[in-house]
Amino acid sequence: MWAVDAQRRAGLALAAAAVLALALAAWRRRRRQRRSVREVLFFPSRPSCTEELLAEAAGPGAAAQPCPCPLPRGDCSLSRLLRRLLSARRSLEICLFAFSSPQLGRAVQLLHRRGVRVRVVTDAQYMGLRGSQIGRLRHAGIQVRHDQENGYMHHKFAIVDGRMLITGSLNWTTEAIQNNRENVLVVEDAEYVKPFLDEFERIWEEYNPINYRFFSKDNK
Amino acid sequence: MWAVDAQRRAGLALAAAAVLALALAAWRRRRRQRRSVREVLFFPSRPSCTEELLAEAAGPGAAAQPCPCPLPRGDCSLSRLLRRLLSARRSLEICLFAFSSPQLGRAVQLLHRRGVRVRVVTDAQYMGLRGSQIGRLRHAGIQVRHDQENGYMHHKFAIVDGRMLITGSLNWTTEAIQNNRENVLVVEDAEYVKPFLDEFERIWEEYNPINYRFFSKDNK
Repeated sequence: MWAVDAQRRAGLALAAAAVLALALAAWRRRRRQRRSVREVLFFPSRPSCTEELLAEAAGPGAAAQPCPCPLPRGDCSLSRLLRRLLSARRSLEICLFAFSSPQLGRAVQLLHRRGVRVRVVTDAQYMGLRGSQIGRLRHAGIQVRHDQENGYMHHKFAIVDGRMLITGSLNWTTEAIQNNRENVLVVEDAEYVKPFLDEFERIWEEYNPINYRFFSKDNK
Repeated sequence: MWAVDAQRRAGLALAAAAVLALALAAWRRRRRQRRSVREVLFFPSRPSCTEELLAEAAGPGAAAQPCPCPLPRGDCSLSRLLRRLLSARRSLEICLFAFSSPQLGRAVQLLHRRGVRVRVVTDAQYMGLRGSQIGRLRHAGIQVRHDQENGYMHHKFAIVDGRMLITGSLNWTTEAIQNNRENVLVVEDAEYVKPFLDEFERIWEEYNPINYRFFSKDNK
């Protein structure tokens, strides 16, 4: 009788453990799915005022003045992109062929002022064009490196806190945001984020100013 | 005694069912992970001969002649992109700002000849440039539609059999493939594929020739 009871208890304990494990696996799956951002943004973005979003991100007090501009308020592809970017707390890697959007430039400077480590890689032939944000970013003390190749540094991606990849066809220019058909993916799956992080580090090292050919090796 | 036995059996059956359910869930998860393609390709692509790949895809007999060119054989980003594209069996949607790569042009024509339904959307200002593949695709009987807007149709994506998205910074040009820093994601997650399919259908309808403004409404 004791043996049968013990067997029964063991069976019930096993069943309870299995049910618990199942529930835990389901909860983990749901949590992972809920936490993992997967978003697609299409452009052109509907015109919309992003002042409040940027002022709010700049800190308390800055949002006190409502923007007087006549643009409609509300969600659009640009404001969603800005929000993803402004979620950075520790680091931001940017690898962009062309960067002239004043709103995105302000967001990047704001993150730099907040203490986020910002690193920018860009294309040498495009960084000096009129309207480029690259000079302003450098002036603000943000590290920028560029290619010295004949081909274009044509990537258009950013990585937020080493875990969120923002990538697509969109150059960060007002022209592209307002007039072009463009796409941006926001991705947290490690299978995509990791190779892009590695690519950024590879390019960052390769574009180290000590490798620039216009410095002679004797002067190093 | 019978009641205890029945309870024990019920407990064991419950435990067995729970263990089975756990194993089934794990097997399903592994199967889903294995089946879902997730790939990142970076460019510039290492130079490599793609003749054998294209000849093999053209059908039996075509691959009999080995290519005499001096380029190295083997895997590279371009050959991987070609292989993904050539896996199409039913449909191929292409939405490309610039398309001049002869290898990718041959692959698309080959799929069209194989009976795959190919639809191409492109940018009006770039489709007529020297070296563009768009004229050849049209000549081969492939449906092509283009924008009539001031902004660029700047997407660079393709969808294979309605289930695999190929997207990134890469225009399908020899220049970009051989000289630029570029990225391409190959994705089968429905959260990404579905919005791009919808975007394609939206653009396809919008760029329907009956909407072209150079046809007067009275002549329709």
